[in-house]
Amino acid sequence: MLDHSLLLTDLYQLSMMEVYARHRMRQPAVFELFVRKLPARRGFLMMAGLEQLVDFLEGMQYSPEELDWLRSTDLFSPDFVDSLADVRFTGDLDSMAEGSVFFPDEPLIRITAPLPEAQLVESRLINLIHYQTVIASTAARMVLAAPGRSLVDFGFRRAHGAEAGLLAARAAYIAGFAGTATLAANRAYGVPVFGTMAHSYIQAHDDETTAFERFALARPKDLTLLIDTYDTEAGARLVARLAPRLVTAGVSIAAVRLDSGDLAMHAQNVRSILDAAGLRNIRIMASGGLDDLSLQSLVGQQAPIDWFGVGTSLTTASDVPALDCAYKLQEYAGRPRRKLSEGKATWPGRKQVWRRFHLDGTLSRDTVRLADEAPSGQPQLHPVMRSGRRVTKLPSLAEARAHAADCLASLPEPLRRLEAFDVPVEISPALRGLAARMDQERRTPSA
Amino acid sequence: MLDHSLLLTDLYQLSMMEVYARHRMRQPAVFELFVRKLPARRGFLMMAGLEQLVDFLEGMQYSPEELDWLRSTDLFSPDFVDSLADVRFTGDLDSMAEGSVFFPDEPLIRITAPLPEAQLVESRLINLIHYQTVIASTAARMVLAAPGRSLVDFGFRRAHGAEAGLLAARAAYIAGFAGTATLAANRAYGVPVFGTMAHSYIQAHDDETTAFERFALARPKDLTLLIDTYDTEAGARLVARLAPRLVTAGVSIAAVRLDSGDLAMHAQNVRSILDAAGLRNIRIMASGGLDDLSLQSLVGQQAPIDWFGVGTSLTTASDVPALDCAYKLQEYAGRPRRKLSEGKATWPGRKQVWRRFHLDGTLSRDTVRLADEAPSGQPQLHPVMRSGRRVTKLPSLAEARAHAADCLASLPEPLRRLEAFDVPVEISPALRGLAARMDQERRTPSA
Repeated sequence: MLDHSLLLTDLYQLSMMEVYARHRMRQPAVFELFVRKLPARRGFLMMAGLEQLVDFLEGMQYSPEELDWLRSTDLFSPDFVDSLADVRFTGDLDSMAEGSVFFPDEPLIRITAPLPEAQLVESRLINLIHYQTVIASTAARMVLAAPGRSLVDFGFRRAHGAEAGLLAARAAYIAGFAGTATLAANRAYGVPVFGTMAHSYIQAHDDETTAFERFALARPKDLTLLIDTYDTEAGARLVARLAPRLVTAGVSIAAVRLDSGDLAMHAQNVRSILDAAGLRNIRIMASGGLDDLSLQSLVGQQAPIDWFGVGTSLTTASDVPALDCAYKLQEYAGRPRRKLSEGKATWPGRKQVWRRFHLDGTLSRDTVRLADEAPSGQPQLHPVMRSGRRVTKLPSLAEARAHAADCLASLPEPLRRLEAFDVPVEISPALRGLAARMDQERRTPSA
Repeated sequence: MLDHSLLLTDLYQLSMMEVYARHRMRQPAVFELFVRKLPARRGFLMMAGLEQLVDFLEGMQYSPEELDWLRSTDLFSPDFVDSLADVRFTGDLDSMAEGSVFFPDEPLIRITAPLPEAQLVESRLINLIHYQTVIASTAARMVLAAPGRSLVDFGFRRAHGAEAGLLAARAAYIAGFAGTATLAANRAYGVPVFGTMAHSYIQAHDDETTAFERFALARPKDLTLLIDTYDTEAGARLVARLAPRLVTAGVSIAAVRLDSGDLAMHAQNVRSILDAAGLRNIRIMASGGLDDLSLQSLVGQQAPIDWFGVGTSLTTASDVPALDCAYKLQEYAGRPRRKLSEGKATWPGRKQVWRRFHLDGTLSRDTVRLADEAPSGQPQLHPVMRSGRRVTKLPSLAEARAHAADCLASLPEPLRRLEAFDVPVEISPALRGLAARMDQERRTPSA
């Protein structure tokens, strides 16, 4: 369903490939994707987007039309464009599982492939993994902020384009959302879909009663009525009067939705009105500018809200719309490589992340080690592709969601409470040693 | 090129349509898209995305496969799904021009269509216009922050998905960027494309000299060398030594790029090194975590930087990734409508925005009036579609970019300096009167 055109990349990827082609630089390169540091207000991150990455890598190929267009641009030599017809991904992919919690300096993806391929995949690889990871990390905070409540993604309209809206629904579901309002996400990924009604629907009728009745009779299943178009409490009283009439018609109201004002106060009032009318089964849904902090506050105030619709703050991850992540060359032609740019130095070599747990199942500590060091806990990077082919069945979305729930459950309490916390990651002595040796060699270059 | 599937929408749009179908509610509805209030750090906004909206509306149709899928979900009655085969957009679209500057409370889009159509288009309409408007508004600030310098979009990898990366390049170009690194944006929209090289390219070679020479000989056009992989000033000295040798081979170095550390200081050092070597023609490009504030600061320090590459802060609009915009029903069946929800009340009726200028061409004041009030300056909403068909040729991207430049030039100085400023918008007395009458009628409902 996604457009994986190989032109969705930076010009420089092809420029570099042209040089590599001319000098036959096709030896194996190891690139790793990692996050340099946590943004403010994030104690952990959650990996997502692997399935889309594998789809991209498996189908990676220039179409004849794309090659014709590349020829027409005069950006590259004709011979080089001809050679692009043979481009495929023939390398290895190791990755954390979707739904895995991770921390800075930990590689979440490792690509091992001939240099030109490993370089060419960079732009779309980051584009796919970064966004879903941003969303899953944001959604996970919301899930932790509202234990026992159900969250639904309402944010397609303000997501950054259609692909973002679609992938946000998927990533949020992995992180523990109950579902989405976006129909296409139900079709593409099987994410459960939910819907209510808009204020315009109410306004298009001369009165709320007619609007509610018509909706109830035409769409009786999971019936949720929006009651704040004119006056929230008046809307609740109308629902109380309407409910017995609808029962006669065989329709029961599942929920009411509030979308404005002081949600805790209105929810309390609405709950009282409904309870007084014997309508304890009608659930309350709230929406309207919610984020992790307002969810935490509403839950802390014991607002009687059962469902939350979350839009913009989820699909744009408006408090942290981007992560400081990088896809860096760690080894080429069997030699570790290290970038030294100020403030951007990387840990060299191919690495593995090991996770250890306390006896009660709580995460104790991660260690980043060179891949050839001895095991030290549970490995976090797993083989996914070898020589361009899948070597494992990817978990279903439901399995990824269950894994995410396990990971969230294993977090130390301060992280689960969304409080600041020291990141429990250590760098192995062997890895520190390699980095120091490489710095030393660069300072005293041999002839 | 974009995927405009009509399933890229919220479930509730179809739920409401099912009710409208049952009750034959097909009278003309007027919806307007507007921004409720400016976010912090924005004195004005810039409209973009119209071309993609028109493409979507013109091609709006369910495919047989989509209808089969809808039937399979059991979310809707079979009759209703059958009726969706006939869905087209048959209405009118009025819009501000792409590149237009606008302010809160001003409708930038008006849809007039049978209610079900006007409702159905909501989700994707907002999705398309909101994102490009977010990006154009962000990019316009950067353009104003760096007068006389050239800006290039480097942000595909961190954009929220592929569509976002593509549309960001387009919207930034309208706002005044010189171009993008994203190849597909060159193909799709003709946005000029630029590229340099990555640190991994340098690292894959045993030394910088070989890396630079190989690139220069294989890719001599607009040659830009990345000099900060190990040590920026050492990189500049290497360039100074290399340049005469390359001239012998017929290659001249167009620019060097810095991507880390204190960019003002390094740019000064690099400029001195290059000038001392008689290489005054080599331009300096800077990148790495730049945003409008750092651009303003670098320009204020007179850093000798000619080109800026801007990534994440542009394509995710990381300081303001979303606008508080709404697409609201303003009139149905000939009667104005008004939503009263707390903090979310709207100006009712169909409206026009009129702009007046001082004698020197500077924007003086906008007035939002009912569409049937007398003209009062330059109208900002123009007819784009009538009865589902384009009635005007949309401006080319170059024309939209020129219009954006004119609009930026017309801004009052405090807005051009990116300082806070009172929004120069007034609401006409007639519009205030209509809203007051509608509130009054609601408080004293007739039988």
